[in-house]
Formats: sequence, C-alpha cells, structure tokens
Amino acid sequence: MDIRPVKYEEGKLLILDQTLLPTTEKWLTLETKEDVWEAIHWLRVRGAPAIGIAAAYGIYVAVAESQASDYKTFAEDFCKVKEYLNSSRPTAVNLQWALERMEKCLLAHEGEAVSGVKAALLAEARAVHQEDEDGCRMLGENGLSLLRPGMGILTHCNAGALATARYGTALSPLYLGQERGYHFRIFADETRPLLQGARLTAWELSRAGMDVTLICDNMAATVMKKGWVDAVLVGCDRMAANGDGANKIGTSAVAILAKEYGIPFYMFVPTSTIDLSTLTGEDIPIEERRGEEIYKLWYDKDMAPAGIKTFNPAFDVTPAAYITAVVTEKGIAYPPYEQSLPQMLKK
Amino acid sequence: MDIRPVKYEEGKLLILDQTLLPTTEKWLTLETKEDVWEAIHWLRVRGAPAIGIAAAYGIYVAVAESQASDYKTFAEDFCKVKEYLNSSRPTAVNLQWALERMEKCLLAHEGEAVSGVKAALLAEARAVHQEDEDGCRMLGENGLSLLRPGMGILTHCNAGALATARYGTALSPLYLGQERGYHFRIFADETRPLLQGARLTAWELSRAGMDVTLICDNMAATVMKKGWVDAVLVGCDRMAANGDGANKIGTSAVAILAKEYGIPFYMFVPTSTIDLSTLTGEDIPIEERRGEEIYKLWYDKDMAPAGIKTFNPAFDVTPAAYITAVVTEKGIAYPPYEQSLPQMLKK
Repeated sequence: MDIRPVKYEEGKLLILDQTLLPTTEKWLTLETKEDVWEAIHWLRVRGAPAIGIAAAYGIYVAVAESQASDYKTFAEDFCKVKEYLNSSRPTAVNLQWALERMEKCLLAHEGEAVSGVKAALLAEARAVHQEDEDGCRMLGENGLSLLRPGMGILTHCNAGALATARYGTALSPLYLGQERGYHFRIFADETRPLLQGARLTAWELSRAGMDVTLICDNMAATVMKKGWVDAVLVGCDRMAANGDGANKIGTSAVAILAKEYGIPFYMFVPTSTIDLSTLTGEDIPIEERRGEEIYKLWYDKDMAPAGIKTFNPAFDVTPAAYITAVVTEKGIAYPPYEQSLPQMLKK
Repeated sequence: MDIRPVKYEEGKLLILDQTLLPTTEKWLTLETKEDVWEAIHWLRVRGAPAIGIAAAYGIYVAVAESQASDYKTFAEDFCKVKEYLNSSRPTAVNLQWALERMEKCLLAHEGEAVSGVKAALLAEARAVHQEDEDGCRMLGENGLSLLRPGMGILTHCNAGALATARYGTALSPLYLGQERGYHFRIFADETRPLLQGARLTAWELSRAGMDVTLICDNMAATVMKKGWVDAVLVGCDRMAANGDGANKIGTSAVAILAKEYGIPFYMFVPTSTIDLSTLTGEDIPIEERRGEEIYKLWYDKDMAPAGIKTFNPAFDVTPAAYITAVVTEKGIAYPPYEQSLPQMLKK
C-alpha cells in the first residue's frame, strides 16, 4: 500500500497524525477551521507540500459550511478563515502559497452563486493535491531511470510520501520501483537529532512493504564499505545556482562517504526548490537550533551534562562537486550545474 | 581538576558510579567482595583498564578482612574471592588479567606471614594502578607533541579518563595540554547508539574545565568544513599488523571526512592493543548488537516502527591509509605501519 498523509474522501478531510508516528497510526477528520489550524500548528501534518495541500482542503472545508447566500458575504467569511489559518505556522511558505492560490480561485469567481464558488474551491484544492502528486510521480519516474532492480539504496532524513501528496521526492522512485517489482534493499539513516529517518522514513517504507533497514547515521560508512549501497537518494531544501544543495544536517557527510566509495549521490530537487538568485551554497543561511534537541531526547531525559555547550545546525550544504545528478520533475540535470539548472527551469 | 574513576584513599576503595553519569556524580565505597562484584557487573566502573584496576584493589579489599592466621588458609580465602570476582564480567579480558596478576603476587609470597602478604597485595594493586596512569600519561605526552595551543580537536566515543586510571588514551593529551595552558577547543561526537560521547566524554572534559562542544555524529563534517578542527583524536580497540584499527562505530567515517578536509587523524593505541597476529582489519571480528540500542533510546521509548529491521555493528575498522599516525605509550608510529608497528613493540 502507499502512503498519502492527506486525503479528501466522501466529503471529509482526513490527515494522518504524524506526531503519533511511528507507534500509532491514527487518522483525524478535520471538520472546522479550528481543527485545521490545530493540525498544522502542532505538526500533525508536516512537510511543505503536505501542509499546502491540507491548507487548501482545509480552507474549503471551513467555508463549505458558510450560511452566506451571496458572494460578498461568502468572500468575507473566506478571508477571515484565510487569515486565521495563515497564523497556524507563520513561517511555512507553502501554507501561505496554498491559501493565496485558493483566494485567487475565489476572486476568479467573483459575483457568482455561492454553491458554484464552493465547487470551484474544492476543485482547486483537488488540483493543488493532484499537481503535487503528479510532480512527485515525475520525480520518481526520472529518479527510477537511474536505478536498477535489486539495488541497495541509502537515504537520509525523510523526503518521503509523508511530506507530500504521495510518493515523496527522494523516496518516490522507491515507491514506483516497488510497483514494478524492483525489490530495492533500503538503508535509512536515523537522522539525529530529531530522528526523522527512524520515525518517518522507516515507518513509511516498512508500512509500504519495502525492505528497509534502520541504521545510526555513523553506520553509513560501514554499510557502504560492505558494498550494500548502489545509490544514495536524498531530498533538498534549497539549491543554489551552482548546484550546491542544502538539506538536513548530515547530508554532506553522506555525500563525501559516497564519493569515497564510488557510489552515485542523487539529490531530488523539485524545480520550485532551485533558487538561481542564490549563487552558491555559501549564500544559503543555515538555521541553528536549540541544544536541547541534542541533549534531551524527546525532551524528557538528560543525555549530557547540564549546561553543556552544543552546536546544532539543522542543515548543511552539500557542494555540487559531490552531487552526481540533480533529479527534478522536469528531468535530470548533470554538471556543470551552472548551465544545466537554468536550462531545466526553462523547460 | 582531573578525573580518576577509581581511587584508593585512606584505606578505602572508591569508584565513581558511571551509570549515574552525566546527571549525578556519586562515589561508592566498595568494602566487601559483593560490593566489588556488583560495581563491575553493573558497569558502575567500565573501560578495560579501569575494570582491571578496580579488580586489583577489589580483591585486596575483600581479603584484607580475612581472619586467616596462616598463609595456606589465607590463600584459600584469596582463591575463592578471585573466582567469585572473575564471574562479575566473564568476557572482560582486563578483569581476568588483573586478578591473575594479583594471584601471581600471592604465590610469590608463599609461606610468608599473612600481614606481609596483605601488604604485598596492596602494593601490587597500587602498581597496576600506577602503571596504567604512567602509560596513559606517556600516550598523552606523545600525543601532545603533535598538537599546538589553541587547536580545535574532534573526538569520537570515550577514550578518556573514565576508562582508565587517569587521563585516558586519546583524551590524555587534552588533559596534559590543559595543565600547560593549551586551551584546546574540543568537539565531542555524541556517538550513537549508546551516546558515550554525550554521556561520558562531554561530562569528563567539561568537569575538568575544558572547552567542549557536543555535536551529533552527523555534524562532524560541518564542523570540519568551518575550519574548526585541526586534529582528530580517537582510541582503538584492536589494531592489526598493517595499521588497520578497529574502534567504536563511526570512527571510519570521521577518518574519511578528516582526509577529505585535510585534517590529521591520530589513533591512540596502547602497545597492548596492537595485535601483530591479526594481519589486516578484515580479520578483526566485529560485534553486532541488538537493534533495541538503536530504536529504543535507553530502553524505554520506541523511536522506530515495531519490528523494524536494523543493522547495529558496535565497531568499524578504519583502514591504515586514513590514519596519519599511531600514538602509543612508547612513541609515535607512522606509515608504513607494517614496518613501524613491529619496531614499536620491540622498544
């Protein structure tokens, strides 16, 4: 089975509560604007694309119950809900993007009957959802063209279905490969400090019936040395014009190890993530987070002496030189990235 | 201040209870053979050299109270205690080694007055302790000759004072440097899965007043890239004749990263740890441990889906080619290790 963290079925918006993973699989029905706000705010739905999808459906669900009988009153209701939902995670770019796209849809139907506007909004939310799934599927198709059945795959963090409509980015070829009987042997780095690999990647791949082995981040070199890894697949949070790619902390170390062991390293980068205005990785700001993430595991037990100094960057930049290819939904870019990335964006 | 996990002071054997670190610093007085057995069995004292020292003092403490008035009766008491203590951690080589050394001392004084034999046993335990401290100090002196004041140092796992009489192996130059005002800036890898870096290394270095920063293992590449690391210092569990060295899992990845960033990588190897009968690292057996260590942190919370497959090697082998120098208590060996290691052992 495959994983879709947000569903709209039989008139209901359902989300998988990711805060309860990996131990409990619970679906929540979001019926009110408060339900939607709470789910986004408390990271029950997470991952930029998945948040956008939940917000698009969410604003529809919240205004579908509006008693307004004319467009103007309905539009006022819509705007109040939009403002409210936009406050659920103020820094999530996809949240704002999805809500504004829904508002554009509203405005495109100005003056029309409320029932028709509601139908248009639902169709728009479905489009946001479908477009993300289509994009992820194309990332997967393009990625799969680089792989062969039976390969050993190593991944870091979670660039999976849980963060998107379906399939994920770096994990998408694994889902498509499974549909086609590829039988990959997958190694998931646990990804300290927040353990997205253990909690999310290991969950979704094993839930989907794939052969996944969980390792600590510091075991990747051993797995590679044993010849168990034929390709590394990782996501990307932002790629500069020269092909330097920021991703979860630890990604650059995996890339260096892959180079040392002669293993191809593929970064999965939706074209919306390529930022040509950022010239190199040096220009990508790296968020530093609280030390508690390192020395208090899940915030209830001290794992290091009180007051210990920490350094906790959330991301690192993998230099373009270590990236064998950049996989996008439009195709695969190869070095020199200064030339291939702008061409990809023009497609 | 410096750290000595085992002390014999004013007629009392004291050990620092390492199971309570890093949150609580509690010293236990071991007065009976049961006290000693319990402390070794439950890892209140750990690290091969420290176990040996505790066992040497421990057997003395246990037989010091013997009411035997003749050598033969005393020797019988001794042998019973020896057998009992030897069962506290059957696989710990240093435990058996220390107890047998104490027995040799007993036999060397056959037929003598019991009071004299007791005094000889205490002197032998003190010698075991002092020899380990001297060896660690020489490891430190030799290691320190490779370092300069103000350097950034990265270490992995715990090759520190807590595992030895004093100073440790890889951490010994840091203690000696501190005595001499070197002001190192030290980065400690947390060392998953059992977090010896966070729990022990960060504790002992910060307790000793050093500037130590705790990082997750996957952050080492970022710290190196920033130019904050001038040398990597690690311990060794077993070194083969060709210079391949087994150490805590993750060490080989650190070595590869150090090579990539042009940072010297020093392995600290007491000559007793060099095994010329093992030709290469391929011949070193690597213990695989239970997956619970990865997915249940401190055994009380599930961090991954139930039944997840894991791979949990406790050690890895760093190929000789990545080891800039091998630091022993007798001197520093450089490549080619096939030649320099046998010469070192002959010293």
